[in-house]
Amino acid sequence: MRVLGVDPGLTRCGIGVVDGLPGRQLRLVAVGVARSEPTAEVDQRLWRIEQQLEEWIEEHGPDAVAVERVFAQHNVRTVMGTAQVAGIALVAAARRRIPVALHTPSEVKAAVTGSGTAGKSQVQTMVARLLDLSELPKPADAADALALAICHLWRPAGALGAPQRAPGALTPAQRAWAAAEQASRRRG
Amino acid sequence: MRVLGVDPGLTRCGIGVVDGLPGRQLRLVAVGVARSEPTAEVDQRLWRIEQQLEEWIEEHGPDAVAVERVFAQHNVRTVMGTAQVAGIALVAAARRRIPVALHTPSEVKAAVTGSGTAGKSQVQTMVARLLDLSELPKPADAADALALAICHLWRPAGALGAPQRAPGALTPAQRAWAAAEQASRRRG
Repeated sequence: MRVLGVDPGLTRCGIGVVDGLPGRQLRLVAVGVARSEPTAEVDQRLWRIEQQLEEWIEEHGPDAVAVERVFAQHNVRTVMGTAQVAGIALVAAARRRIPVALHTPSEVKAAVTGSGTAGKSQVQTMVARLLDLSELPKPADAADALALAICHLWRPAGALGAPQRAPGALTPAQRAWAAAEQASRRRG
Repeated sequence: MRVLGVDPGLTRCGIGVVDGLPGRQLRLVAVGVARSEPTAEVDQRLWRIEQQLEEWIEEHGPDAVAVERVFAQHNVRTVMGTAQVAGIALVAAARRRIPVALHTPSEVKAAVTGSGTAGKSQVQTMVARLLDLSELPKPADAADALALAICHLWRPAGALGAPQRAPGALTPAQRAWAAAEQASRRRG
C-alpha cells in the first residue's frame, strides 16, 4: 500500500510518499516540498501548489492521500493559506477517486514517536529511523509529510480503509513501531 | 464587464453573476447557490462544490471572479470549510486565466449600502434595488454573492484592473449608487 502524505502550507507544502504493508519494513518512495512564490497573488500561489501536488500524485499513483487536519486555532497569520492548500490536496485526490484521510498533528506525532506532544526534531529522528534513512529528512515540512503517511499506514484496525483485525492484535508494523519506541526510550 | 461573485461556504456557496459598465445600469445575469451534502466526506463535498463553480464559470464566462476574503476570526466551526471553498474558487479561476479579487465583508457592505456594518437584510434590499429586481435575492448567500460582484464592478478607480479616472470624479454607476443610498436614507 502506497500513501502520499501532505503537510499543507502555501509557502512550503511537504509531500512524502511511503510504501508499507503489515509485516514489511516501511519504504521511502519519495519526499520533497512543493513551493510557491510568497510575492505572487494568492490565486497564483494556490494554483502553483496544486500543479505540483498533481504531478506528485500522477507520478507516484498513491492508494491513499493523507492530509494534516488544520485547526482554526493554528497560527492566525498563515492558517487560511494552510487550510486552502489542504482543501486543494483533498480535491486533487477526490478527482482521481483516491481515498483521503485527515490526521491531526497529535495523531501523527503519537504514531511515530509514541507521544502526541513530541517536538519537531523527535518526529524527524523517528521518521529517519522507521524509514531506515541515513540522514534526517529536511526541511521539517518534508519529515511531517512522511510522518503523516506512516501514521496513515499504521492507523488502528477498523479505521476507514484499514484491514480488519482482532482487537488487541498488533500488526508486525505496529510491533516494529513499539520496538522502535522502546529503543528510542532507552537511547533517550 | 461581467463579474462572478462567490460567497464561499461548504454547505451553501452563493454565486452571483452581474454585468456592469460605467454609465450603464447593473444587470443581473444569474444567481444561485452551490451546495454539498453535509453528511458526505469533506473531500467529496469540496469536489462537488468545485464542479458546480466550474459549471458556472464555463456557462457565464466572467471577466473577473470576486471572492469574499475569509478571516480566521470567523465562525470557528465552519471557517476551515469556508476558507477551503474560497481557495477552490480562486484556483478554478486561475486555471482559466481569469483575474480574481478578494473583498472583505465590510468592503462589500460599504459598496452596496454605504455602511461597512450593514445587516443582511439591508444588503439584500440594496442588491435588489441596484439590480432592479422585483424580489429580494434569497438565500442571503446568493445576495452576498451578487453584492460581491457589484463591489468588484464599483471598486475604486486605480484598484487592480479598474479603468483609470481623475481623482474625485464619480462614475455614473457611483452616482447611481450615491443616489440609491440617499433614497434609502429617506425611506429609512
